Amino acid sequence: AVLAAAMTAVTAVALAVAAWRRARPVREVLFFPSRPCCIEALLAEAAEPGAAARPCPCPLPSGDTSLSRLVRRLLSARRSLDLCLFSFSCPQLACAVQLLHRRGVRVRLVTDAQYMGLYGSQIGRLRHAGIQVRHDQHSGYMHHKFAIVDRRMLITGSLNWTTQAIQSNRENVMVLEDAEYVKAFQEEFERIWEEYNPANYIFFPKGSNDGA
Amino acid sequence: AVLAAAMTAVTAVALAVAAWRRARPVREVLFFPSRPCCIEALLAEAAEPGAAARPCPCPLPSGDTSLSRLVRRLLSARRSLDLCLFSFSCPQLACAVQLLHRRGVRVRLVTDAQYMGLYGSQIGRLRHAGIQVRHDQHSGYMHHKFAIVDRRMLITGSLNWTTQAIQSNRENVMVLEDAEYVKAFQEEFERIWEEYNPANYIFFPKGSNDGA
Repeated sequence: AVLAAAMTAVTAVALAVAAWRRARPVREVLFFPSRPCCIEALLAEAAEPGAAARPCPCPLPSGDTSLSRLVRRLLSARRSLDLCLFSFSCPQLACAVQLLHRRGVRVRLVTDAQYMGLYGSQIGRLRHAGIQVRHDQHSGYMHHKFAIVDRRMLITGSLNWTTQAIQSNRENVMVLEDAEYVKAFQEEFERIWEEYNPANYIFFPKGSNDGA
Repeated sequence: AVLAAAMTAVTAVALAVAAWRRARPVREVLFFPSRPCCIEALLAEAAEPGAAARPCPCPLPSGDTSLSRLVRRLLSARRSLDLCLFSFSCPQLACAVQLLHRRGVRVRLVTDAQYMGLYGSQIGRLRHAGIQVRHDQHSGYMHHKFAIVDRRMLITGSLNWTTQAIQSNRENVMVLEDAEYVKAFQEEFERIWEEYNPANYIFFPKGSNDGA
């Protein structure tokens, strides 16, 4: 009976610790370059939770890297994913975003007009998949690199979503569940989303020959 | 007597609020583009605190902008300023850094080898002024854009320190007095600072003709 009581107490403590861990807001910094890694298992688990993982035939190691941590945070989205990305050419991250879209997460993506058409850009593929994309019309760059998961978690830093940046550059990404910072970035996102509404595009700027 | 007591109470409350404000850690987000502004008054005050401000003859407005806030945070440095900057071509920010160096603040600057030689780069000027600069030797970019003031305040985001970015781009900069995040970035800075020590430069890589 004493043993049973002790076991119950241990279980209660373990449950309390687990609950506290779940409740504790995320505060993380990821530094890059990241070792190349396979994220197929993460994507498979997100697509079909609990399904038996099939081993991926690719030669890349799986395991804990800055890239896999970033992907995990993104895949935790349940309702919404707001993306504000200067450059987006990493196919692995595009797979993750597309998967969320298929799973019913509302994905909105703001990007830079001059970079979205570059070779390797994933923007066309994501648009083709039905994801809403808006871009600027300015000479200045839309240079943000942030994501907001479920209006709750902010992912921001120096990292463009390119394979070169992930594998070769010195970069940082902060992940914060912090209402004050999330609010500031969410408001910036909504400002930009409205400003870049295609209904507001100007196709014949004043002074252009076409507009005469 | 009642009035005097009331005045004393009001003063005490005001002092307490001021102390609390001073003690409250900084948590700020700056969004760009910033309106162009004159920072001469900020620099003059930092160079000679309390000196009567001479009006600047330039036509730019002074006042509260994202740029002036960023400059104020930098100029608050008393002991050290660690800079990890992909691209640094903004003359105004270079003036602020040079002023801190003259005032005896220990400035260390890490930058990207491929960008430090571009037209308009302020790196040569800062080196000439006696500031320690180190750079990478890699094909990947040193793409961080962060500053640490007095090992206490982290300034980080998407903003390269260029006039184009400040005045034309959509950018974010977070300013945090947060021991956990400062520690993570300070450690990254020290890692890079050591790795980029000129004593470790390789001038004749294996396999190069020069090294044969």
